[in-house]
This record gives sequence, C-alpha cells and structure tokens, in this order.
Amino acid sequence: MAKGLTKRSEDYSKWYNELVMNADLAQHSDVKGCMVIKPYGYAIWENMRDVLDKMFKDTGHQNAYFPLFIPKSYFSKEASHVEGFAKECAVVTHYRLMNDPNGGGVIVDPDAKLEEELIVRPTSETIIWNTYKGWIQSYRDLPILINQWANVVRWEMRTRLFLRTSEFLWQEGHTAHATSQEAQEETRRMLEVYADFAENFMAMPVIKGSKSPNERFAGALDTLCIEAMMQDGKALQAGTSHFLGQNFAKAFDVKYATKEGKDEYVWATSWGVSTRLMGALIMTHSDDEGLVLPPKLAPIHVVIVPIYKGEEQLNAIAEKANAIAAELKAAGLKVKVDLDDTKKPGWKFAEYELKGVPVRMAIGPRDLEQGTVEVARRDTKEKSSHSMEGICDYVVKLIDDIQTNLFERSLKFRNDRITEVNSYDEFKSVLNEKAGFVSAHWDGTPETEDLIKNETKATIRCIPFDAKVETGVCIRTGKPSAGRVLFANAY
Amino acid sequence: MAKGLTKRSEDYSKWYNELVMNADLAQHSDVKGCMVIKPYGYAIWENMRDVLDKMFKDTGHQNAYFPLFIPKSYFSKEASHVEGFAKECAVVTHYRLMNDPNGGGVIVDPDAKLEEELIVRPTSETIIWNTYKGWIQSYRDLPILINQWANVVRWEMRTRLFLRTSEFLWQEGHTAHATSQEAQEETRRMLEVYADFAENFMAMPVIKGSKSPNERFAGALDTLCIEAMMQDGKALQAGTSHFLGQNFAKAFDVKYATKEGKDEYVWATSWGVSTRLMGALIMTHSDDEGLVLPPKLAPIHVVIVPIYKGEEQLNAIAEKANAIAAELKAAGLKVKVDLDDTKKPGWKFAEYELKGVPVRMAIGPRDLEQGTVEVARRDTKEKSSHSMEGICDYVVKLIDDIQTNLFERSLKFRNDRITEVNSYDEFKSVLNEKAGFVSAHWDGTPETEDLIKNETKATIRCIPFDAKVETGVCIRTGKPSAGRVLFANAY
Repeated sequence: MAKGLTKRSEDYSKWYNELVMNADLAQHSDVKGCMVIKPYGYAIWENMRDVLDKMFKDTGHQNAYFPLFIPKSYFSKEASHVEGFAKECAVVTHYRLMNDPNGGGVIVDPDAKLEEELIVRPTSETIIWNTYKGWIQSYRDLPILINQWANVVRWEMRTRLFLRTSEFLWQEGHTAHATSQEAQEETRRMLEVYADFAENFMAMPVIKGSKSPNERFAGALDTLCIEAMMQDGKALQAGTSHFLGQNFAKAFDVKYATKEGKDEYVWATSWGVSTRLMGALIMTHSDDEGLVLPPKLAPIHVVIVPIYKGEEQLNAIAEKANAIAAELKAAGLKVKVDLDDTKKPGWKFAEYELKGVPVRMAIGPRDLEQGTVEVARRDTKEKSSHSMEGICDYVVKLIDDIQTNLFERSLKFRNDRITEVNSYDEFKSVLNEKAGFVSAHWDGTPETEDLIKNETKATIRCIPFDAKVETGVCIRTGKPSAGRVLFANAY
Repeated sequence: MAKGLTKRSEDYSKWYNELVMNADLAQHSDVKGCMVIKPYGYAIWENMRDVLDKMFKDTGHQNAYFPLFIPKSYFSKEASHVEGFAKECAVVTHYRLMNDPNGGGVIVDPDAKLEEELIVRPTSETIIWNTYKGWIQSYRDLPILINQWANVVRWEMRTRLFLRTSEFLWQEGHTAHATSQEAQEETRRMLEVYADFAENFMAMPVIKGSKSPNERFAGALDTLCIEAMMQDGKALQAGTSHFLGQNFAKAFDVKYATKEGKDEYVWATSWGVSTRLMGALIMTHSDDEGLVLPPKLAPIHVVIVPIYKGEEQLNAIAEKANAIAAELKAAGLKVKVDLDDTKKPGWKFAEYELKGVPVRMAIGPRDLEQGTVEVARRDTKEKSSHSMEGICDYVVKLIDDIQTNLFERSLKFRNDRITEVNSYDEFKSVLNEKAGFVSAHWDGTPETEDLIKNETKATIRCIPFDAKVETGVCIRTGKPSAGRVLFANAY
C-alpha cells in the first residue's frame, strides 16, 4: 500500500490528517484556514445534507437565503452575542480594486472605502431577526420555521480539516414563535432530529443534554447539544439547538399582536450542524486502513473488482460483474464496477479500503468457474465466498448489518468510556489514563467549571437529559451538587 | 385584490419589482445590493438546482467546494481576467473586531490587518486552477469534471432583485482536459445542457450562439451563450459556457505528462448559471395578475380551495378535497388543500394567481351535490367544470399541457420579435419601436460593435449557431459581413 497511514495508536492527529487527505476528502487551500472539499468528501456531505434537509422539511421547515454580509453595527445590538461572535471574523472594508498607478499590480482602491464595514457572517441571527421584523406583525404570522444552508466564516488561528476551519458549510435554523413553550419545544424537537440523524444515519451514538452556562451560545437562554465520543477518548460536540428567549426579538424590536391585540416580543430558537460532522464521522468509525463509512451515507455501497489475466478473462468477468451490479442497483444500492486496467487488484483493494466503501466484491477466474464471488466487508474486514445465486439479497442484508454493527460497535466503545468518579484525584487520573466522558458531581457554578478547566483542560460537555436523580458533593469544591454532569477533553 | 400589481404596459420595471416582492420571492436586505431569497422563491430555485444538478451528474460531473476567499495576487495572474473581474468586488482587509476603548461600540481592530487582502470570490477560476495544479500530473488525471454550487459577490451600484445583485447564488463548472478539442466539446455539451434546461424545464425558448469578442468572459477564447427574450422586448443572457484555452493553465502553471511523456498545458472550460434565471423565469411567463410558473419548476402544482358556508359544509368539502389531493399526490403532483378559514376564497384565488400555482381547483356545495369541481389553469385563466370521476387523469394531463403551452406561447412571442434589417435606419427604428432581437450584418470588428452600442445601446447578444450562411454588408460601416448576428437591448 503506497498510501499507508500513520497508525492511530502512534499519532492519532497525524492519522486523521493523512486519512482526510489520502482518502480525497479535503485539503488545505492557500487561503489560511480555508479548505477545499474534494469531490469524494463533498459527496458524503451532500448525502448528509440531503437526509437532514428532508428531516427539516418533514418537521415543517422551509429553506430560504439571507445575505453573506452583516453590517458591523448589528453585532452591537445583542449584548452577549457581540461578546461571543463579533471578534474573530472577516471584515470587508472596501469594494473595489484598481491597477496601481505606480505599476505595483492590483491594489485596493482607497476611494472605495465602505461607510460601514461589513462582516462575513459567522452566524446569521442578527441579519435574520432584522429581516423577521418586517415579516411579523400578528400571531397569524407565527411560527416562522426557516432553515438556511450556507457558508460561514469564523477566523481561526489553529485549523484542522473539517473540525475547525475559518470557512465552513453548515445549516442554520432560525425560528420565531408566539410563546416561550413553543420555542422550547422546537429547540428540543430539532435536537431530537440531530440525535436521530447522528445515530441512525451516521451510526454515531450521542448523548443528549444541556450545556452549562459557560458553554452556552452567545445570546441563548439554553443550549441543548448532542455529544459524541471519538476513538481517542475526546468528546466532540456534534450539533446544538438554542432557546434564544426574547433576546433577539428585543434587540431587533420584533413584536407581534396577540389574538387579544396585545403587543408581545417574539420567542426564538436557532440550531445548526456543520461540515464538522464530517470530522466526527471519520473519527467515530475509521481505522488504520482508512475511512469506514456507514452505508446510509456512503457515496458507493459496493465496489466490484475483477481479478484476471488477459483481455478474454477480463471480458468474461466484466460481464458477470455488470450483471451483478445491475441487480444491486435495481435493489437501490450504489455500485461501482472498477474495470480500470492500469491498476492492479491489490492497489484497488487498498484504495477502496482507504475510501471506506462498505462492501467489496472480487471476482476471479476460479469464481467464474464455480459461480462464486468473494465478499469483503469494510467494518470487520471479514471475507467470505458466496454463490452468485442470491448474492443480491445477501449483499442488501449485509449493508444493513454493517450499518447496525457500526452503531453497536461505537455504542459499546462510547459506553465503556463513561466513568463515574467521586473524587478530584480519581477525576484527574481517569482523564489522564482512560479519557472519555467522566461523570462527576459539580456545584453548578461557572467559577468551579473554570477552575476545573484551568486545572485539567476538561470542560462540561453536557448535563445529560437522562441523568439519574442523585445529589452529592462537587468533586472540586465539596459544595452540594444537584446531579452528575459529563466532563471530557473535547475537540 | 389588495395586492394588485402595476400593469406591465404601464411600467414593466415596476411590475417586475412588485411581483417579486408580493409573490414572496425575494426582497432587498439592509445590506446594499444583497437580497433575501424568501422561502417561496427559494423553493423554485431549489427545484432549478435539483434538475440542473442531476443533469450535471448525468454528464459525468461531480460537485466540490472551494474557498470563498481568493488572495488578491491571484487576480493579477491571468492578464485579461484581472481586467474583467478584479475591479468591483468585496475586499477583506481585517480579521478581528474589538470593543472601542473609547466606548464607541464595536470597531475594527487595527492590529488585525491581513498581510494580503482577500477578495470575496466573484468567480473561482483562479483559486480552482491554483488547486488543480496539485491534482494534475499526467493524462491519467484528466479530464477533471467538477461543479460547485456557491455564492459569489460582484459589487454592483444599481441592483435589481435576481437580475443584478451584489451577492448571488450560482453554479460554476470548471473542467480540465488533455486536448483543445475535448475542452471545446465540453463547452458545447454544457451549453446544450443549459438550453435543454431552459426550454424543457423553464419553458423558455433560447437562442444558442457565440459571443462576439467584446462580450466574451474575461480570460476566455470563446464564450457560448443562451439568450432569451423577455416580454418587454429586451434580451437576457441566461447562461454561458466558456472555452478558456490554456490561459488559466499557463497562469497557474498546470501541465500534464502526455502518454508519450511530453509536458503540455491543460485545456480548460468554465460554465455557469445563477439566480438570475429566476428573473428570466419570472419575466418570460408572468402576467398582470402575478407569477406564472411552468409546472416542472413549481413548488405547488395544484391548489384546492373549498367554497363553503359553515363548518358542516367545510368538513364535507374538505373530505372530498383531501381525497382528490391524495390521488393527485399519488400521481406525483405537489398539492395544497387550503382550509384556512381566516381567508375568503376570493382572497385565496388572487393569492395563488399571484404565486403562479399552475392549477387551481375550487369545490363548492353545488359541486359536492353534482360530483364536480371547477378547474382553473393559471396560464390561460380558462375555467371549466369537471366530473370528480377521472379528475386525477385530467389534471395530470392538464399539467403537461400547461408546460407545453407556456413554451409554445413564449416561442411564438420570441419568434415574432426577431426582425431582419438591412440598413442602420431600419435597425434603429426596429429597436425603438418593436424591440426584440434585430438580425443584422456586422463587419466583425469590436470597433463597430462599440460604435453601435454607443449610438443605440444595443449589443450583439450572439452569433447564432444556426444562422443561415449569408454574406452582406455591415449596417453601420458598409464593410463586408460574413453573416448576420443578433443585436438587442439587454438586461
């Protein structure tokens, strides 16, 4: 294998970077912090987007599109939002270039300075709520259930492909409601959509919960999240859903007339997932040979590789391979028959392993004689020989099995990495030696959370919805605790 | 009708703006030149995008994603490209905001100045060819057939919703080939895809041809285009496909090793259509009552409006309406049953006319007795009564008829507005009095084209592929002409 990866056990971070590049998922561009998403990586993202988009529409949402640029002054309107968002961002100050009169190439035209700088959106609450003001007069205009697929920019100094890039792709839902309860129900509904997507399509188990106040979205009253566990024992926030209360309605003066004719501020939610999910997908399932993809998101389900000597054998095998491919396609699978005669079978095997194709079929001359094919599953790397009779039914079922196995394997891995601790020493030793989620009592104050973060780097990933009711004492301060929360080192 | 539009005959431009806003397609944002695409408008764009995306994939293309920002220096690399594109664009100069220490709110942090300014992409040839350099070594890496769906920014002083906005959505295909011939075939192939889409989905007839050198894309050796005719007699360029020769390969030093081991520069094409097509769609078919949509792109095909007094009648009619809707949906149509009891039927009729729903069905108490429904088609406004028996088959066929009728109506309109002229006086009088395309002889020089443009505002829209072979003399200079070209005033 020319493209051998660094082993995860040697250097997890290096393994990740090599995998992303070698499997043709993405690469760094010359523009600091911005990535190029390559066709194979983009095809996976398209599959994610299509599934999510359908889920959003099935829950009553419509797509729309709002401007890329936000006037600088908008960020000052919601006090806590400006603290969280208006800092590291791309600022447009001019709108024209010109030829340098001194022959120095293209320069910025100093006469084309904008009166007010424009910010490339890091998130769109402000411009969307400024627009909603014109859309909402009465309770009849509510709810507004809108989603946007867009690119956003948050200037980052240290970037990693998919996980942290200055520009990334995402969807952001922005809803407006007549009552606090409706908005809170929407916040929870969309978190459940994300959890459903993560578990049933990405095959990635997630813990649903609330963020501690320290980790809340800037401007939110409550941030719900799904948290996943990567193979290196670090947590990854995979999606968030925010209950924004009336903060943005007040900042942008968005009121509605109730049925009784009273003016009230509107209640808001926002929720988003991004190309970061690509990083989560990769790090949940992949191995030292490369990407492992859950079938429901794979651009190719099955690849068929002929093993042959000479054109005659190739033609005979190709005929069989194409017939099987046609049958599999008719059953709804995405199939590639790789007849490229400039590459050897061994090279192809390694390549499709690297790219995470769930099922590989090989057909050689002896298979042709015996009416068999060799089937290899990517998740377990098991190989077995099967009769060509009924192979379609077998593979359709195998695809389902792989999806299920990936989820169950990840679930076991994750569950093995939730450790209850009852002292700070234990807390630190688990973090250092085992990693994963650490379930511990916390006194509920931001100060203690900061203290623990400074001392151990661990943060509260979430206060799980399904935590058992159990009081105790804070591992750090000894003060009373209302329940356990999950700490972890996180991406 | 509360939302009555200005008539086209009174003020075409005002009619257009009111239609776009009243039909909930788009609106201006507070950010100069940037629009908000509202859910109903975005749903139409999504339909366009989905159809085009499938056509691109069916012709072997894959999607990818390249950075929003382009380093300023890239624009200097291709000499003619910089002239055409690096002028009116959004320039990012800083990457951080800060709180004004003097209490003046949020200001740009003067310490966070970029070493090299970044340009928000006006088009992506430069950054993509800079990336292709790393992807192409040998003939085995070719062709590269990639498309990107993205937002782009070209700073515009005078903007119109969909037709000319500073930010717009589009797709841009960028392909790399081993030979000039392959690249030219690709250029033509994608123009045919655009023409197919325009005529068979948008129901908008187009003339296919080449641009004159004056109107070519900056950096192209040849620009092919499809040109449509709007109801005010102005032409609209609906899509372009460029043969870029080796210009970008040379600018970014992209060579490949041939089978024979020789190094050659790669050949390029690019091609794009944008949200401008929304403007073309609107102006091709719509009337004084509002939008008229070809069924193949309509978010709703059929709306059913009950006409009733009291809850009992409503319930009985709703039951029938829902049964018919279920049948129509099973036949693949998108159907809305409007049971909103806060709006009167007359209001609803006007609203769905405004929104261009192709078929409206009304069911009243007498219909219920007689087992009939009233069917109104949006394109001709004809109404007729039909038995509920077999209504589904009737409507399915009607939807097809509307699609066909819209194309034929537009084709007749367009063909009536192609006028051959043989003198400059005739040319000017046709332009002033009849408008439309004017087919005239031209001496083939950019100077004469400029002269005619300055004197009449008309430009050469295209040199049609199917022009008959006919020599003559230029209407302006009397010099020899190799054939007629199409002039028009254009959007």
